[in-house]
Amino acid sequence: MSADEKKTGKPAPREKKAPTAEQMAAKQQEISVTEFFEKNKQILGFDSRSKSLLMGIKEAVDNSLDACEEAGILPDINVVIDKVGDEEYRISVEDNGPGIVHRMIANVFGRLLYGSRFHALRQSRGQQGIGISATVMYGNITTGKPAHVQSKVEGEDTASGMDIVVDTKTNRPIVSNDLPFIWEGKEHGTKIEYTIKGRYIAGKQSVFEYLKNTAIVNPHAEITFRDPDGKKYTFERATEIMPPRPKEIKPHPEGMEIGDLLKYSGNSAQKTVSAFLKNDFSRITERLCKEILDISGVDGGKKPGSLTREDAIAILDAIKKVKIMAPPTDCLSPIGDTLIKKGLMHVLDGLRPDYYATPVTRSPKAVNGNPFVVEAGIVYGGDIPSDSQIQILRFANRVPLLYQQGACAITKAVSDMDWRRYGLEQRGGKGIPFGPAIILVHVASTKVPFTSEGKEAVANFPELQSEIGLALRLCARNLKSHLNKIERKNKTHAKFEIVQEILPDMAKKAADHLGRPVPSLDRTITRIMNVVWIEPSVKKDGKQKRTFTYKVYNYTSIPRTFRLHAHLPKECIKDLSIYSSPFFLDINEEGKANWEIRDIQPSASVTVEFVLTGEMAETFDADDIYFSGLNPVMVMGAEMLPGDWGIKGMEIIETEEDIREEEEESEMTEEEDLDDE
Amino acid sequence: MSADEKKTGKPAPREKKAPTAEQMAAKQQEISVTEFFEKNKQILGFDSRSKSLLMGIKEAVDNSLDACEEAGILPDINVVIDKVGDEEYRISVEDNGPGIVHRMIANVFGRLLYGSRFHALRQSRGQQGIGISATVMYGNITTGKPAHVQSKVEGEDTASGMDIVVDTKTNRPIVSNDLPFIWEGKEHGTKIEYTIKGRYIAGKQSVFEYLKNTAIVNPHAEITFRDPDGKKYTFERATEIMPPRPKEIKPHPEGMEIGDLLKYSGNSAQKTVSAFLKNDFSRITERLCKEILDISGVDGGKKPGSLTREDAIAILDAIKKVKIMAPPTDCLSPIGDTLIKKGLMHVLDGLRPDYYATPVTRSPKAVNGNPFVVEAGIVYGGDIPSDSQIQILRFANRVPLLYQQGACAITKAVSDMDWRRYGLEQRGGKGIPFGPAIILVHVASTKVPFTSEGKEAVANFPELQSEIGLALRLCARNLKSHLNKIERKNKTHAKFEIVQEILPDMAKKAADHLGRPVPSLDRTITRIMNVVWIEPSVKKDGKQKRTFTYKVYNYTSIPRTFRLHAHLPKECIKDLSIYSSPFFLDINEEGKANWEIRDIQPSASVTVEFVLTGEMAETFDADDIYFSGLNPVMVMGAEMLPGDWGIKGMEIIETEEDIREEEEESEMTEEEDLDDE
Repeated sequence: MSADEKKTGKPAPREKKAPTAEQMAAKQQEISVTEFFEKNKQILGFDSRSKSLLMGIKEAVDNSLDACEEAGILPDINVVIDKVGDEEYRISVEDNGPGIVHRMIANVFGRLLYGSRFHALRQSRGQQGIGISATVMYGNITTGKPAHVQSKVEGEDTASGMDIVVDTKTNRPIVSNDLPFIWEGKEHGTKIEYTIKGRYIAGKQSVFEYLKNTAIVNPHAEITFRDPDGKKYTFERATEIMPPRPKEIKPHPEGMEIGDLLKYSGNSAQKTVSAFLKNDFSRITERLCKEILDISGVDGGKKPGSLTREDAIAILDAIKKVKIMAPPTDCLSPIGDTLIKKGLMHVLDGLRPDYYATPVTRSPKAVNGNPFVVEAGIVYGGDIPSDSQIQILRFANRVPLLYQQGACAITKAVSDMDWRRYGLEQRGGKGIPFGPAIILVHVASTKVPFTSEGKEAVANFPELQSEIGLALRLCARNLKSHLNKIERKNKTHAKFEIVQEILPDMAKKAADHLGRPVPSLDRTITRIMNVVWIEPSVKKDGKQKRTFTYKVYNYTSIPRTFRLHAHLPKECIKDLSIYSSPFFLDINEEGKANWEIRDIQPSASVTVEFVLTGEMAETFDADDIYFSGLNPVMVMGAEMLPGDWGIKGMEIIETEEDIREEEEESEMTEEEDLDDE
Repeated sequence: MSADEKKTGKPAPREKKAPTAEQMAAKQQEISVTEFFEKNKQILGFDSRSKSLLMGIKEAVDNSLDACEEAGILPDINVVIDKVGDEEYRISVEDNGPGIVHRMIANVFGRLLYGSRFHALRQSRGQQGIGISATVMYGNITTGKPAHVQSKVEGEDTASGMDIVVDTKTNRPIVSNDLPFIWEGKEHGTKIEYTIKGRYIAGKQSVFEYLKNTAIVNPHAEITFRDPDGKKYTFERATEIMPPRPKEIKPHPEGMEIGDLLKYSGNSAQKTVSAFLKNDFSRITERLCKEILDISGVDGGKKPGSLTREDAIAILDAIKKVKIMAPPTDCLSPIGDTLIKKGLMHVLDGLRPDYYATPVTRSPKAVNGNPFVVEAGIVYGGDIPSDSQIQILRFANRVPLLYQQGACAITKAVSDMDWRRYGLEQRGGKGIPFGPAIILVHVASTKVPFTSEGKEAVANFPELQSEIGLALRLCARNLKSHLNKIERKNKTHAKFEIVQEILPDMAKKAADHLGRPVPSLDRTITRIMNVVWIEPSVKKDGKQKRTFTYKVYNYTSIPRTFRLHAHLPKECIKDLSIYSSPFFLDINEEGKANWEIRDIQPSASVTVEFVLTGEMAETFDADDIYFSGLNPVMVMGAEMLPGDWGIKGMEIIETEEDIREEEEESEMTEEEDLDDE
């Protein structure tokens, strides 16, 4: 029951067997990095069998995508899993990448902390030089079998093939069966096969799910997959357009440590501190450099290598005081709003939410000299279960993160926010909220700060945390304004029903009762309402077609001219015949569409209609309709065109005088109406 | 607003600038482990400034405790923090350990992956050979200043002192000012001073909290601390008794991988496979070895180095089939139930819970050949806030874990359990529950599987997860049985009140009304109740004294003889005068006490009373009273002595016949009583 007795029962003061400092010294020794990771497999993500199976595939696929993108090749990746024994699987991952030259293969796959992307300041999936060699090592350890690698470089006659084992004592590859061969029909590419202990599972943390999510945010890749039962899946290429290759940049001075600066200056090839600052960093211009040197008092003419610790402190202090441009974005490759919406759509698997909030992309910031950008999206309502915690989809550098949700800065940012004011349930305003919502967050950086080598969760750097929080807040604000809109709409809809149905009904009954003809209510309604009324509705024709109808009533006493505006999903605008509405004005390439309604008479109504087709059709929210050219106090059912819309709406024609007059008139008519009854 | 346009706007098919395989090969290079960690400081726990400050101190203190315990010295540790600049602190950690011989100092403090405890199968705090050198490195990077180390080995005239910087390119120490000196008044010990960027904070994740929790679970250590404001704290040594030094063991065969076995066999100094199995592992006896060889069909006479992969698979399969003893526990050093209770008590800071569940210590298991043991404790109710999530205190190898709660297997085990059936609130039966409870979990292992080098969270190994879950379930069951007891007690208390107060009151009023004398109700009450009634109460005299009173009523129709039993905190039994009760029988060293009540007459009552003093007094629950010598159906207010109590209670004297008779009698009397009214 208790081990306590054993522990404190007997005294153990200065035992004779206790080793001396000299004996202890004899035990001090170097630990090879491979031995370290062999004993700490969980740090690499190889803890449970099911996770281990996924980790290896993830590392191989990430590498394939990186290699293809770097070489400007549209990726074709083929993943095959065969069950070969009790909890033992043979994995094969083949790509059409540029291939690896023969002399490098063994090191890339058989040596930890060896790679090409570690020192590059540019967004990529693999950055550590650990993942794939750790996979080979873990396969070796658990099954005793070597990995087999084949690779062909474009233009060469033969491909290379070899068996690789990681020597965990020395962290060097042991190669056997190193033979050239003819790779039939293959121009270039790499294939790795390895045997590993694992468990093949279905569900949220499965290989299938990882590949599906990878395909969604990498639509330029074609991924085929054969599962252990022989079932084949193809995630087809959705675009032939490669995302622009992220450019390699110089370090950004924001958030640099003294040690970083001294290291850069010590290694600099520049002749002077001045040249060092201007040429070895991003965003330090001639003028800025001068400013930094002035403030710091450091001599710009001296050699970079002669910078002292005091100089470095002064320069870093000066950097904090001057205004440096945000880091360049071309080293990053964000997912973008279309793919964020698609990602959210795919995870729904047939569930239809009420609302897709416009995804948010923050402007880039830097942490420790590494630029990063945060994107976020949210869907809400509809069929999404409302009685469980919201789902959080996490991505880093276009790689889905399926494990260690609890450790992740993304989860922390979600938990730290008070979602109650955005319509979700959250006890005490902390923790993952409950409700019908799914949130997607992507962190892209030249160096994603993962919490461990397994790359499963993003570390809680305050700068990063705060950016994720801001992105989420913006998303939540969109959601909230949607929910407010719905509430307002419900209220106004009730009024609309009274006016359109109950009033005529009452009039008819009163007339019948008095034996008099039913009076025309048009003027009465107009006087009661004194608004331009926009009543949206949407008709669903199957999964990929939506007809949006806006019935517009002029319930004011004078003719009105104004415009309607909507930001449609740009993927839906190819078929221009849908804009046959007589009110249609134009649409730009972003999908911002405009309609104009001229001289609509008092008590008259018109209908604006359009059809959206394609899989993005459902992401448009019928309530996202805007107007211009009218005073907002007299419009119901649409919002005023926001200032940042970017295209010109119509100026409001009324002056303040007009409004006051109209308001007075409106009060008067209401009184009159009351007298009438 | 959206970066999407930039991304997919322009096609980028096979750009001319795309590098070839050969160009890419030129970029492949080795990454030094120091460079890796320099760029991934967050993996070591150095992400936010406040966390960085704590991490360094934690590494230094952990090392000091390890060194002292290894050398059998009662640890005296002194931690000083001075603020020396904007977010810059000078830290000093000094111990009275065995010291480090001069030639080892530079490597221990200035080289990552260098240490003495990595290869040892024995519980210790530091195991990776990373922590303290990473601290030195982080100090260097953030402030540009070297660390200063002083150390004196017992018996030597002079101490060594030197400045150390980690060369991140080569992972080797750069030493300067290496000078011997006379360390006044110091016999042996080590002191490290370093300057680091950090932020000193208060609260749950502070240095103070870490040191306090460390002192609680290491009561043999004396820790003094001076904070940046110059305020001094002393966590005094609570015991002179060292915890037994964990023994170094051989690997346990449970959960070994093929690669592990092949590596051991390849390195074995044994002549035969037979000898290898018997001598190089824990718990493989002569008989077991024979069994394993028989089942596997492997020739025990051949050399270990000649084991093939197939042999290894056969041996591992055989190991799964034979019954191997659990790993030895003397390589582990659990906290024990007293310290678990104390730990929980200290975190309460004056809050008084209703209930301390008896802490649970599981028997050891192994994962990947590493034995581990899980301990858990829980407190409930009283002043603990009931409207927030329960608090989880995590410890690993006697080190408090203050960060990365969300990533930890301990948190996952808590979240995966349905606490609703144990009286806590938990939406959907998942997640951290809400309610007035604090849970403490300690994982002790020869190799705690941390999720990262920062050692902040325990990885989700299924074996470990399941053990933590079981420990929690046992704790929760104790809690539940307490809550049930409370509920029963409340119910019976209501009945007791009726019998003791309302009935006599009624009788008096009836007698007054009729002008007749008040009848004696003793027999009536006895007939209604037909139980032996035990009514506990507790009186608090200050923080460290509690008087427990048990009023015992015999509401049955015959005289009764029986015993009462209680398991008192053994820390409270020193003062034996408290057992002056005439009913007191004896108490053993575990604190299990016995009282005997002889021939208590029908309708009579006696009082058993005792006083507990000392800080553990409050951990005894008055409701934890047991009886023996009576049939349980006729006792209220106490539980029957459980079978695993270990000391002899009294046999129940009644036969089944007696019970049936008594039950019938009881039914009859009840009818009679009804007639009386």
